[in-house]
Amino acid sequence: MLDTLREQAVRNLTSVRSQKPLVHSITNFVVMNFTANTLLAMGASPVMAHAEEEVEEMVSLAGALVLNIGTLSGPWIASMLKAGRKAAELRKPIILDPVGAGATELRTRTALELMQAAKPSVIRGNASEILALARTGSKTKGVDSLHTVEDLGNRVEEMALDQRAVFAVTGPRDLVTDGARTVMVENGHPLMSTITGTGCAATVTIGAFLAVDPDPWSAAATALAFFGLAGEIGASTSHGPGSFMTAFIDALYNLSPEALAAGCRFMQP
Amino acid sequence: MLDTLREQAVRNLTSVRSQKPLVHSITNFVVMNFTANTLLAMGASPVMAHAEEEVEEMVSLAGALVLNIGTLSGPWIASMLKAGRKAAELRKPIILDPVGAGATELRTRTALELMQAAKPSVIRGNASEILALARTGSKTKGVDSLHTVEDLGNRVEEMALDQRAVFAVTGPRDLVTDGARTVMVENGHPLMSTITGTGCAATVTIGAFLAVDPDPWSAAATALAFFGLAGEIGASTSHGPGSFMTAFIDALYNLSPEALAAGCRFMQP
Amino acid sequence: MLDTLREQAVRNLTSVRSQKPLVHSITNFVVMNFTANTLLAMGASPVMAHAEEEVEEMVSLAGALVLNIGTLSGPWIASMLKAGRKAAELRKPIILDPVGAGATELRTRTALELMQAAKPSVIRGNASEILALARTGSKTKGVDSLHTVEDLGNRVEEMALDQRAVFAVTGPRDLVTDGARTVMVENGHPLMSTITGTGCAATVTIGAFLAVDPDPWSAAATALAFFGLAGEIGASTSHGPGSFMTAFIDALYNLSPEALAAGCRFMQP
Repeated sequence: MLDTLREQAVRNLTSVRSQKPLVHSITNFVVMNFTANTLLAMGASPVMAHAEEEVEEMVSLAGALVLNIGTLSGPWIASMLKAGRKAAELRKPIILDPVGAGATELRTRTALELMQAAKPSVIRGNASEILALARTGSKTKGVDSLHTVEDLGNRVEEMALDQRAVFAVTGPRDLVTDGARTVMVENGHPLMSTITGTGCAATVTIGAFLAVDPDPWSAAATALAFFGLAGEIGASTSHGPGSFMTAFIDALYNLSPEALAAGCRFMQP
Repeated sequence: MLDTLREQAVRNLTSVRSQKPLVHSITNFVVMNFTANTLLAMGASPVMAHAEEEVEEMVSLAGALVLNIGTLSGPWIASMLKAGRKAAELRKPIILDPVGAGATELRTRTALELMQAAKPSVIRGNASEILALARTGSKTKGVDSLHTVEDLGNRVEEMALDQRAVFAVTGPRDLVTDGARTVMVENGHPLMSTITGTGCAATVTIGAFLAVDPDPWSAAATALAFFGLAGEIGASTSHGPGSFMTAFIDALYNLSPEALAAGCRFMQP
Repeated sequence: MLDTLREQAVRNLTSVRSQKPLVHSITNFVVMNFTANTLLAMGASPVMAHAEEEVEEMVSLAGALVLNIGTLSGPWIASMLKAGRKAAELRKPIILDPVGAGATELRTRTALELMQAAKPSVIRGNASEILALARTGSKTKGVDSLHTVEDLGNRVEEMALDQRAVFAVTGPRDLVTDGARTVMVENGHPLMSTITGTGCAATVTIGAFLAVDPDPWSAAATALAFFGLAGEIGASTSHGPGSFMTAFIDALYNLSPEALAAGCRFMQP
């Protein structure tokens, strides 16, 4: 299984670069610029559009839809629901990023509503956010995780089976599961958590991979390996979060399929 | 004509740096930070304000108004119309950036509505966006161009005459025309298309030059030469899109009028 | 007094790094990314949330609240008032950044309304913005200051006594006063004014220090010394605004308490 993922990682990165999939994001204000640059650097094509009047038309042009609840408000929720339903109807892959679920009721409720209405292929969050979606009463401190992947036990596999979705739980180690298949992704670097929007950028990276890989489980796992490896490469020449941002975007652009094959680290859980 | 443009480029850059014109932008969320930094780096003064209650007052203080439809919604359209009408009444120069026109009906229709209501001096877009404004039924893929300047033929000159506006069509080569006078700007670098907001940043640069040059045709052409040359300089020390962003902003700040005179490349079409 | 401030600066920076206070910002679109990265780099934890439905819940989790009026609109004003009243009720420290007060009536009026409703501990602005709050009829050019700290005379001390708030007036030299105690902070570098959001980033830095220091006067003064010193360090290796941004974020991350003790410069007014 791990060798297959390695080969799939190479295929997916090559396909993103050759197909340049359009990724439609309805996302939060904080990370719009950074996530658009993340997509462009890896070779995909970002578009942002959030008006109820145009989201259906825009998502029809896209290869994948990203829904990110990081700075919610009423009109944006309505647009996310509308875009999500349209994407589901057109069988376009959707990824949901439940930023800050568990911190406020609005966020938890909206994330669950989007899961029900849009049936996302992948849900990516940190351990606290994913636990909040299980409605276990877990608490989040703002948008930072108070839990690790290990705290999730096998609850996340049950959630994946129940939702018929892939869960990608990111942290120092990432866990990706569809309930039947579970893999850990060991790539990444601590500097990644010192800049804002790393999680959101991981989400759009999965979005781009979803547009070229019909299996959302391998799309998510390979995207996170690519993303984490670029983080390692960027960190190796950085002196802090500022220079890391710059080097990370450069690494997303320069990372070759061969370097990805050599550097991705998938592990059995 | 080309020598005159070269001299005008030097004059305009010098004037922007000495006059520090206030450029009022009503623009999209993705590029607000980057375009504000673009204006500051070249020596201009950015301000963003989009509330219907204050756009008229703000535009009265400004030397130019930028309208950019990259992340539209109803209230923003109303504010753009209000600010545009006020600027027209006060004879402040306006530049319109029809981001994604052709991708959705909302964008095409809004761009045309703003052209009619505000009579912008300059309209800057990629070839697909400009074709969409001709209502030829051309299609855009998200916000990226599927066409080149060469696909426009002389249709853009007809549009310029018809609209009594300057059209600045950007791409690997830029075309600037008021219908009677047409010039190509050859400055630029492929790395410019690997970061988000390059087109929007070109637009605000024209905005700053419009505030100091009463001829919108020479303002647009010289601004694009300055902008493209800064891109070339930035790219010369870059290792990818991340380091390019940094070096590009540095180049906008450091580019001297003498270096601009030596490096700008205007061509007859 | 100046030696005490120096010791307090070290204590505050150490506390921010160990306690990682959650700073809730309701702020403008232009600077959201940069101010979140500013907070992360220094060791604090940023969260943005602006929906009326969730601001009370979010501010309850936070160590400080930042209200910044840089891109106002009706719904955001309502949310700022709601969050501000809740924070006041919970005795959470609030800092107000009246961006562009004096430029439009909406901004001046909203800043005064927030001062009355939320009773912020600290108000940080440039000299023009602070003068506008005194309703002296002073005018601002967009968001840039036309005045210096020296133009304020002792009016700002009267305002501080009247409002029972600390005023932090930033510029080439910063003045911090609660009416009874006044100090100048001499740290900083001219490159800081060549990037957008420096003032807003200074505000969130004070926000983080307010979360760990019960005296808003020393919180503001020490935060500005730390912030200005990081600017000096960043500028020392920069070639323009682009490389400055990168080096500045690195400096916020790397600046040690010892270096802060050695480099902070407080002066009697």
